[in-house]
Parts: sequence; structure tokens; C-alpha cells
Amino acid sequence: MDKLVECVPNFSEGRRPEVYGAIAAAVSARSSEGVRLIDTAPDSDHNRVVITFVGPPEAAAAAAFDACEVATRLIDLGQHQGDHPRIGATDVVPFIPLRGLTMAECVTLARDLGRRISAELAIPVYLYEEAALRPERRSLPDIRRGQYEGLKVEVGRDPGRAPDFAPAGPLRLHPTAGATVVGARWPLIAFNVNLTTPDLAVAREIARAVRESSGGLPCVRAIGVFLAGTSQAQVSMNLTNHRVTPIHRAFEAVRQEAEKRGAGVSGSEIIGLVPAEAMAEAAAHFLKVEGFGPRQLLESHL
Amino acid sequence: MDKLVECVPNFSEGRRPEVYGAIAAAVSARSSEGVRLIDTAPDSDHNRVVITFVGPPEAAAAAAFDACEVATRLIDLGQHQGDHPRIGATDVVPFIPLRGLTMAECVTLARDLGRRISAELAIPVYLYEEAALRPERRSLPDIRRGQYEGLKVEVGRDPGRAPDFAPAGPLRLHPTAGATVVGARWPLIAFNVNLTTPDLAVAREIARAVRESSGGLPCVRAIGVFLAGTSQAQVSMNLTNHRVTPIHRAFEAVRQEAEKRGAGVSGSEIIGLVPAEAMAEAAAHFLKVEGFGPRQLLESHL
Repeated sequence: MDKLVECVPNFSEGRRPEVYGAIAAAVSARSSEGVRLIDTAPDSDHNRVVITFVGPPEAAAAAAFDACEVATRLIDLGQHQGDHPRIGATDVVPFIPLRGLTMAECVTLARDLGRRISAELAIPVYLYEEAALRPERRSLPDIRRGQYEGLKVEVGRDPGRAPDFAPAGPLRLHPTAGATVVGARWPLIAFNVNLTTPDLAVAREIARAVRESSGGLPCVRAIGVFLAGTSQAQVSMNLTNHRVTPIHRAFEAVRQEAEKRGAGVSGSEIIGLVPAEAMAEAAAHFLKVEGFGPRQLLESHL
Repeated sequence: MDKLVECVPNFSEGRRPEVYGAIAAAVSARSSEGVRLIDTAPDSDHNRVVITFVGPPEAAAAAAFDACEVATRLIDLGQHQGDHPRIGATDVVPFIPLRGLTMAECVTLARDLGRRISAELAIPVYLYEEAALRPERRSLPDIRRGQYEGLKVEVGRDPGRAPDFAPAGPLRLHPTAGATVVGARWPLIAFNVNLTTPDLAVAREIARAVRESSGGLPCVRAIGVFLAGTSQAQVSMNLTNHRVTPIHRAFEAVRQEAEKRGAGVSGSEIIGLVPAEAMAEAAAHFLKVEGFGPRQLLESHL
């Protein structure tokens, strides 16, 4: 079976279509090599675009480099404002093993791309999650602490903030493109559970109870948010490894925590893409299917 | 996206590996055209083999024809004995739309293959399910009534049993290969629900309550069986169109009918392959996911 990776790079431009469109076009240009652009999701408030594509490993890495090169030419981080924390024009580039390759191969792909971005585009590169070279670099928020404006000052002063791949010359950020984080991770599932209460405090308590960082479920990040449109509180989660904590376990945990507080679950949403295996696993749980395996999915044979 | 069909032909030989192996080899021989042999499942009691493969429509039809040609040469139905009803060496050939094509296209594929089998191999062909030309031919058991031995006598006498594609010459079955049924259908899910009771009568009552033929759920076939190994009664179902009756609805119906009779559901099993979309649909139901669509499955973009 052909090897296939997913790549979901984030760029610091979500307002000018001629800029994020040109970045997406750099990915599409590799279609003859098997790269398929799946989604371009600009966000105006965040002033950021998330591009999703899949392809054979080498072609996907080449497409990511090309997109990064375009972003480096067209985005000036000194002029950039937006709600979302960022350190670079090409802010973060994660590779995800989809089919026929191991996480170790994705890590190699990420490190090779990081080295190339640093060498050819003169951008300092940090390696994160599974590709991290230091344990404290696994977490993206930690690398991005103080974001562009803060890192710009600290990078040359604090050895703890030195990039994993530094371009030749004095230690500093790229004058317009800042720095870039490259890494490898498992597929992330964006799963939000809506509560029957409008009480944001309840959603926050539940988020605290279920997320890993405060002693909850492993590989779960969660925050409480208020949905103005429907006047509902919501527990907004990222499941970073559905093989460790599957969707149904996160769902049941939120439901139980809500019940303890006299609230219920009115519905849920999955944002973006989800691996079929993760949904099948949840279905098998609720249907009590014994001995179900992902090889039973018809599509695993296509 | 490339068009892909599944084909699950059944041949009347489940004991001699050199025969069913040669039939499977005829399918594999089309691998350079994109045909992929997924499974070869011989059954000695039934003296029958079920072969599962996928491929682009034209190549899959060609592989089905080649397999039928090999079966015609190697199987003599006059010498065949087995538990399962059959009318031909190549007994039944269903096409299932997997990706990028409509049921109407599958029907055309089935009819073209039927015409070719009749013309080139001199085998009478009946069209069934979605490909049927007469409403009474939709049901496979009806076409197979009296099986080979009975049909052999009736085919030339009863106009109601005349094939949809008759070879040139007098109306009779092929001397060794009998007749063949070709058709198109939706993916079938073999889903069995185990009860907490050993009482076969309860399983039979539940099967009667949930199956379409006795007024239950549409596109559900069900029988009650007793599992000697675990001393459990089981409701064994075929879901013939999960878009009409999804897995979770069949499961909930069995659970409710069991509860009415003081029994419970201890577990379930899915035999063979299941479309990812059907499992995702069930997961979305139990997780209360709003607005979930199969386009959100990562694999739908591969």
C-alpha cells in the first residue's frame, strides 16, 4: 500500500485571499506527485489560515516547503495582528501518519523539512510533539510562549529558547517570517460537547475535570466556552490520540461530569476531519461489538 | 475520484482448493488493472466459496467474467452436493457501488456482464435485486427456488422461469454450469446480536419482530439461532441498506424487543466487512453529533 501522510500547516494570514490563496496554490501545484489539497480554512479574527492536504511523504514535504517559501515572501510578521498566538509567517507544520508509514518515519520527515527550512529560507526552526529533540519542546504552547514579539527578544539571549535548527549567522528570528515550528503528531480530533446549561462556569469545571493537564483523561485538551448563538455552554476538546482516549470515553466523561452538576448533554460536533477508525471504534463500543478491528472496515482494503 | 465497485461472487465449490484457488487466481490476474482480491472464503459444508474483490467497474466486470469462465470449465453441477441452495457453478454475482458511482451504473454493469456470460459461455442468466428486469426477480431465493435440479426441469416448460438472457438454441440450463444470477445491491452488513438468554424461542420472536418480511424494519432480514459454544440465543441479521435502516436502529430494536421479554443484550458481532460510513453513522447517533456527514471522514479524501 502506498505511504500517505497528512499535513496541516498553519500560516499567519487569514484576511487577504490573494496571500493565503497563493500558499494553497503552492500545495496544489504538487498534485501531479499525488498531493491532494483537502481544505483551506482562513479565519479572519485569528488572521490565520489552516491548510489540510495529504500525499506521499516526499511529495507532501516538498509541498509544505513550497508553501512555506511562498508565505515567507508574502507575509511580514512585523505587520501582522490577530487573536491567535503565533511566532512565524509559517507558524506550525505538523505531519500525521495516515497510511502505510510509522510515526518514526513522520518524525524523520518533519526533521528533514525543518533542517531544509532553516538552511534554505534562513528561518529558525523548532521541533515539537513526536519530533521534539528535547522533552520541554513537545508542547506547542511552550515553544510559542511570548509569541513572535517575545521570542524575537529572547531567542538570542536565553539558551533555553535557541531553535533546534538555527540558520547560519547570529542567532535571531527571520526579519519578516519569524520562526517556524515543525513536527509530527497523531491525528487530532476536534470534538465539542454542548451542554443543556448556558452556565460557562459549569463548562469550565467540566473541562478542568476531563483534561489531561489537570489530572483528567490522557491526550485530552479541553476548555469551556460560551456559544452566543444558541446561549449554550460548551466543552471544547482536542483529542490528541484517539487510541489512548477514544471519542466515546471523552463523551461519557463529559456527560458524567455534567450530570454531577445537574446538567445534560444536548448534542456535540466534530470540527473538520476524523479518522474512520476513531468513529468505528466509538460505534463498536456503543453497539457492544465483540472483537471488532479496523481491518473490518471495507475502506481499509481500498 | 476513481470509480470503485465491490463484487462478491459465490461459486459452487468449497472443498477442492485447486478449483476455488484457480477461480480466485482469475480475479488476481486483473490486479494490474486495479482489481484487488480481498477475501476467499470456502465453506466445506456448503461446498461453496465466496470471493470478495474490489476494482474499477470495467476491470471488476472483466475479472468476474474470467472467474465465471474458469468455474464453468472446472465445476460440474451434476456432480455437486452441498448444504447451500444453488443453481449454477457460478451461482450469484452481485456488484456493490463503493465509491464514485451510482447504483444505476452498477445495474448497467451487472446487465452487461449477464449478457456477456449468456452469449459467450452459453449459460442462462437471471438478473436480481436492483438489476432485476421483473419485480418477482428481485429476490434471490425466488430465482433459486427448487435449485439446480428443479430449475433444470422447469426452465423449458414454465415461461415464468425463463432466464433474462437466454443463450441461442433451445431453452435449457448449461449442461455442467447450470444457470447464473447476476445483479447489483447495496453493501450488506452481517450483524448478530447476542442475548443474555439461552432461549432460542425468544431469539426467534425478536427476529420476527424486527425483520421486514414480517412487518419490522425495512431492509432487515433476521433469524433466531442458538450458539452452542456459549449457550446463548442470538438474533442474526443482514442489513441490506444501512442508509434505510442503520446499524444502531437495528441494535436498538433488538434491545427493546429483548427487554419486553425480560432479556438483555450481552454483545454483538459484525461478520466480514462493513462500510466505514455505516459505523460512523452509528457513532454519530450515540455521540449525538449534529450535522455529521461522511465527507468528514478523513478517508473519504484519500
